[in-house]
This record gives sequence, C-alpha cells and structure tokens, in this order.
Amino acid sequence: MVNERMYGLGAEPSAIRELFAYGMARKAEIGADNVFDFSIGNPSVPAPEAVKQAVIDLMDEPPCDLHGYSPAAGDPRVRQAVADHIRRRYDVPAQPEQVYLTAGAAAGLAISISAVTEPGDEVIIIAPYFPEYKVWIDTAECTCVEVPAHVPDFQLDIDALERAIGPKTSAIIINSPNNPVGAVYSRENLRAFAALLARKEEELGRKLYVISDEPYREITYGDEVPYVPCVWARTIVCYSYSKSLSLPGERIGYLYVSDLMDDAREVSTAVAGAGRALGFICAPVLFQRVIERCIDEPSDVAAYAANRELLTEGLGALGYEFVEPQGAFYLWVRALEDDAQAFSDRAKAHELLLVPSDSFGVGGWVRVSYCIPRATIERSMPAFKALKESYER
Amino acid sequence: MVNERMYGLGAEPSAIRELFAYGMARKAEIGADNVFDFSIGNPSVPAPEAVKQAVIDLMDEPPCDLHGYSPAAGDPRVRQAVADHIRRRYDVPAQPEQVYLTAGAAAGLAISISAVTEPGDEVIIIAPYFPEYKVWIDTAECTCVEVPAHVPDFQLDIDALERAIGPKTSAIIINSPNNPVGAVYSRENLRAFAALLARKEEELGRKLYVISDEPYREITYGDEVPYVPCVWARTIVCYSYSKSLSLPGERIGYLYVSDLMDDAREVSTAVAGAGRALGFICAPVLFQRVIERCIDEPSDVAAYAANRELLTEGLGALGYEFVEPQGAFYLWVRALEDDAQAFSDRAKAHELLLVPSDSFGVGGWVRVSYCIPRATIERSMPAFKALKESYER
Repeated sequence: MVNERMYGLGAEPSAIRELFAYGMARKAEIGADNVFDFSIGNPSVPAPEAVKQAVIDLMDEPPCDLHGYSPAAGDPRVRQAVADHIRRRYDVPAQPEQVYLTAGAAAGLAISISAVTEPGDEVIIIAPYFPEYKVWIDTAECTCVEVPAHVPDFQLDIDALERAIGPKTSAIIINSPNNPVGAVYSRENLRAFAALLARKEEELGRKLYVISDEPYREITYGDEVPYVPCVWARTIVCYSYSKSLSLPGERIGYLYVSDLMDDAREVSTAVAGAGRALGFICAPVLFQRVIERCIDEPSDVAAYAANRELLTEGLGALGYEFVEPQGAFYLWVRALEDDAQAFSDRAKAHELLLVPSDSFGVGGWVRVSYCIPRATIERSMPAFKALKESYER
Repeated sequence: MVNERMYGLGAEPSAIRELFAYGMARKAEIGADNVFDFSIGNPSVPAPEAVKQAVIDLMDEPPCDLHGYSPAAGDPRVRQAVADHIRRRYDVPAQPEQVYLTAGAAAGLAISISAVTEPGDEVIIIAPYFPEYKVWIDTAECTCVEVPAHVPDFQLDIDALERAIGPKTSAIIINSPNNPVGAVYSRENLRAFAALLARKEEELGRKLYVISDEPYREITYGDEVPYVPCVWARTIVCYSYSKSLSLPGERIGYLYVSDLMDDAREVSTAVAGAGRALGFICAPVLFQRVIERCIDEPSDVAAYAANRELLTEGLGALGYEFVEPQGAFYLWVRALEDDAQAFSDRAKAHELLLVPSDSFGVGGWVRVSYCIPRATIERSMPAFKALKESYER
C-alpha cells in the first residue's frame, strides 16, 4: 500500500552505497590503512578557518533573530551578497531577486527541473551523468533523454544534441567541471552549444532552458570555466558550497535564474512555487549567514591538485587509460574489461574500491575519487599494478 | 513555458506574507512599537543556552567529519539518540532504523505524504489546517478531503471522519497541539479515532496511515498530549525542533515510522525513496549533532504561558469570543463579522495585525499569535477595545 515508485527508489541497490558498506566492513576486518577507498565524494580538504570563525561569531547574535525563519528564497542580505558576488565575478547584471538560496545543489536541481518543465516534457542529460538527475526528472514526470558526451574529450557532443533536441525538449542539464569525468566544457564548445540552442528555439518555437549544475566550479586545474549565463541567457545556475567550502552536509547553495533571459521573473516565480511544492521552507539559516561572511573565501585546491598529479602519474606509468581531469576530484579510468562491475569486483581483491561506470549510465569505466588522503594514493600503487597484471597473465 | 502549477504556487497571494510585508512597511512609517503584530509564527523564546554551547563545542571537531555528508536518513548516532528518546519518553519500542532525520516537519510531511499514497488517493485534513498540507498533497497527486473539526471544542469530529473515509483514503493528517486553533486532542478523542480507523481498515480492506504533525508537542499548558503511535500503530510522527528548541530556520526535525505498524520497514523504505525523489540529501549535519546533545533540553514554555494568560484575560474582559488554547502559541478568535478578511482589514486601522481564518480553510475567525513580546500584548489592549467598539456603534 506504500507508493510503488518511492518504495522502488528506497529499495534500489546503489553501487556507491554498497561499496561504502563493503569498505566499512573491510576496514574493520583488515585495518583502514589496508583498504584503498576511492569511492567517496566527501571533500578531504577541511572547511576554511573563516567558516569556523563565522559560526562562532554568529552565535553571539540574538538567538531568535539568528535561528528564526528566513523568507523562503533566503535572507535578503545573503541574496544581496550572492548577487553582488555574481555581478563582480562574472560581469552579469545579477539582481538579488533572481537568487534563491537552496539546501545545496540537489535542492536547486530538483526545484529547477520542476519549475521549467510540464509533465510529459523531455529533459536531456549528458552521459556519464550524476545518477540522481534521473530521479528528479522522473519526479517532474518528464522523460529523461540521455546524450553521450563527445569521446574522447568528453565535451558536449553538439551533433548528438542536435539529434536529441525535439518538440518536447524543455531543458538540458549540464555539469562542468564534470562529475564523474572531470571534464570542463570549453568556451568554444559552450558557444557551439548556445548556437545550436538558438537555432532550435527558433525552429521549434519553444524555450530551451539550460540547468547548469556547478558544485565543482572552483575545483579546477588551470582551465577557464566559462560562466554559462554569459553564453546562453536562458540558464539557471545551481551552485553549492559543498565542495568549494567543504560543507556538503550543511546543505547550503543557491540557484541563480539569469537576469539575462527574457522570462527571468516568470522562472523565478515558478522556482518559488517548486520550492514550496517539494517541501522546502528556507535554506538552513546559520549557514546562509556563514556564506554571506565567507563568500569570497578561496577554495583550497592545492591538495586536490597534488593528488591529481600523483594519481595520474602513477596510473599513467602503469599503463592505465584515463581522461586527463580538468576539474572536480575524480579520475575516469578505462576498465580493463568491458564489464565495469566485474572490473570493480576484481579490484576489490586488491583492496581497491572503484565505482563502476554503470552507476553513471555508461559501461566500461570506473570513477576513482582523489578527495582522499595523499598517503592512500601513494600506498595504493602496488595494488593498481597487481590489478593490471592480473589482466595480462 | 514554465510549469503552470509551480508558477501558480509561486504567484499565489498569501494573507500571512502580505500582512508581514504590510507590517514591515507600517513599522517603518510609525515605529515598531506602535504596530501590534500578531501575525508571526517565529518563536519569541530564544534557543536554550545549551544549543549555543553545543554549536561552539562541535566547531572543535575535525571539519571534514563535522560538515561532511551524513547518510540520507541521518547520522547513525543521532538516529540512535532520537530512538532512545522516543523509547524512554513514550514507552514504545522505537528502533533507530525507523527514525529518518528531516529538514524540519515540512520535509517530514512532504516525504510522508508521497511515501504512503499513490496518485489519485485521498488524504484527509482537519479544518482549520496549516495551508501547506494542501500543496504537498497536490504534489503527491492526491485529492485533499477537508473535514471540519468538532465545534466548539475543535477535537477530531469522529462522525464527520466516518463519513469522509472511503475506498480511496490513504492517510489522515492530524496536528495536535494544533496550529491555528491551539486544541490538544484528548486521549479519549484519539481512542475513538483509532477505533474508527480499525473499523474502516477492516471494512475497506486497506491501510489507513495517520501522519501526526507535532511541532508544538512541547508547547502545552497542562494538558496531556497522548503519543499517537500508542493509540494507532499505523502512524508516522513528523517532529520538528523549530518550536521546542526555537530553531525554525535551521530546518531540523525527524520523522518516526512507528515500529508498531505491521508494515514499518516497507514504509521506511518508501520514506527513503520519497526523500530522494523530492531532492533531500540529508538533514543539515551540524544541527543533527546539536540535537543529539540537546535532546533532553526542556522547552521554555513559561513565557508563552504568561502571554497566553495576559491575552486571554484581556480579550475575555473585552468580550471577545475565542477557543481556550491548550497548546501551541496561537489564539483562535471569532471575527466580529462573517468576513474574516474584512475584519482583519478593519483591525489594521487600529494597528492590529491578525491573520484571517480563510488562510486556514475556514471563515469567520482570526489567528492571533502570542509568540511575541509581552509588552506588545499589554499595549495592544486599547486597540482591541477600540476595534470591538467600532462594531458596536
């Protein structure tokens, strides 16, 4: 008698959760240092000291004001601070009315998808993709259309998108820097994408929204991450401080409905409605205020950059094939057999926990997280070597 | 091209929000002390000192552990603490697996409704009701069936419920202590309700879930608040620390799927699925840990009790008719004309901000919040007097 879809979602096996549980058990068995856990997505760089100081300072404010409800879209001071930040940094005319604070990027995405689609519409996602996209598209009663990324650079495949965009398409979700691949879409690639969207809007006589999922925006290794609203006006940016300030559990982020789109106010109104419909009241208020104080705090990317170098050099020397990561903290490594799950299972025998690519909608790869202690990467190399050799016998 | 329902929800006028905006403007015009704002629902009792101390202590923990993701259902230690608390306090065999930490009662309600209904089912609510119930019922694509409370005591009307429960009913939402009326359902009333549900389950051959919305459980003035799972096994309790610890903006609460129901595990699984579907990742983690440390912290009800006495004595002496509040911090006062909105508008001329009952699904009353400074109540009495006299001329 419970809801069948919800039961299915709750009971659904998850390779990531299963690896996590396996890892916990295995670490208890043979010691944490002997398990090389590359399965996680929790930042390993601590939140900046400024966050701690902001929390402690804020606790001196009158508790009723500090912990009280904010308006649904967020504390006006914080929305202003975010809008100022966007204006300053990306040179777009961001107004606070277009900023809606959310419980992380997940809430922003679920809200955005429900706001700009009608049941029966199609939403395009790029494979490999973050698996929850499909859940939220399903919640909005839309059809998910998967378009593979361009291989081997994992940029947007403009020709494939051209074939996929049709009379029912409402939105395209993009994610750059990308989880799980680590690709960053170039300005050239995004411009070609925008030109396609303009042509398709004209041809189909309907609006095409880009939902830009950007939790990894600050985690890059030299490449420019173009601001999507500057390239395509009809963009909703879903941002999170989960990775940039290492606060994933605090559920704080925002969505920004670009002022540059002609229906910006209409979309913002629908966003407010979707927030209500999904059961959000306001983003957690203490961390709203923390963000206001830490908005220009730089992300500490150095540790991830060092891990990235260590891992790519190590796996490269062993002859593994992988996508050179431009951002985020994941390495996308070609499995040594077609069946990624079987490869991941065999890796376990060497105490290596690697997430099979099936979780992300494609076969034949594994995701190797490097938001982990450097020592784990160093000590894992003999295991990666033995795994490779086990396929060469 | 945006979603029509979401746009409508976002654009919908709200008497509470409008009063709030009016109040802000009016206070700026004539001074905050000269406006008697009875429209709000933010606790006026500050969060206990123990909350501040818990936050400050927790900030000494390693940031990656402290601010990292918790499992979707919450930190296992916190779920254990909540289960222990429930067991200790209500003598039910609560297990941590049945506790799911939520971003406040709102998230708990939205998740519960989606978990135990299928599209097309009916969900019963008791009028007057908290207006967002209808939004979340609509999100689950169910039909909302309104059953008036029993007058004049505003207990559950068992006869009316008997007529309303039918072959499509899946759930009944109850809220005791009640917003907006202040009623607390007696044990006798709840027992009669449970007997009806048992009979109807048998007769209709289907499960009837009670969703018990309990943010005001601790805010009472002497009456017992029976624990609903002890009376009806098929209950999901939606609890929040918004009022009991004065943390509404921090979005922290839990839902408890009673272990006593025969399908407890199935419902918990559907709850996990509904949490995913609606875009929740985990309840904010810092305040999860605060709750663990403050779980036995008593609520400071004294200030509300004093306000209640002051207000009921004052309005009683002036000849206003109202429901004697047993819990929460609202007084339900009979409007002096049939049109509650017109009465609320006329009250504004006396600088009194009262929420018309139309917002809660019934006509002819206003909700008067007394979670406000005592001085405001004291100074408002001449205005209430003048308002009454304006109807007697």
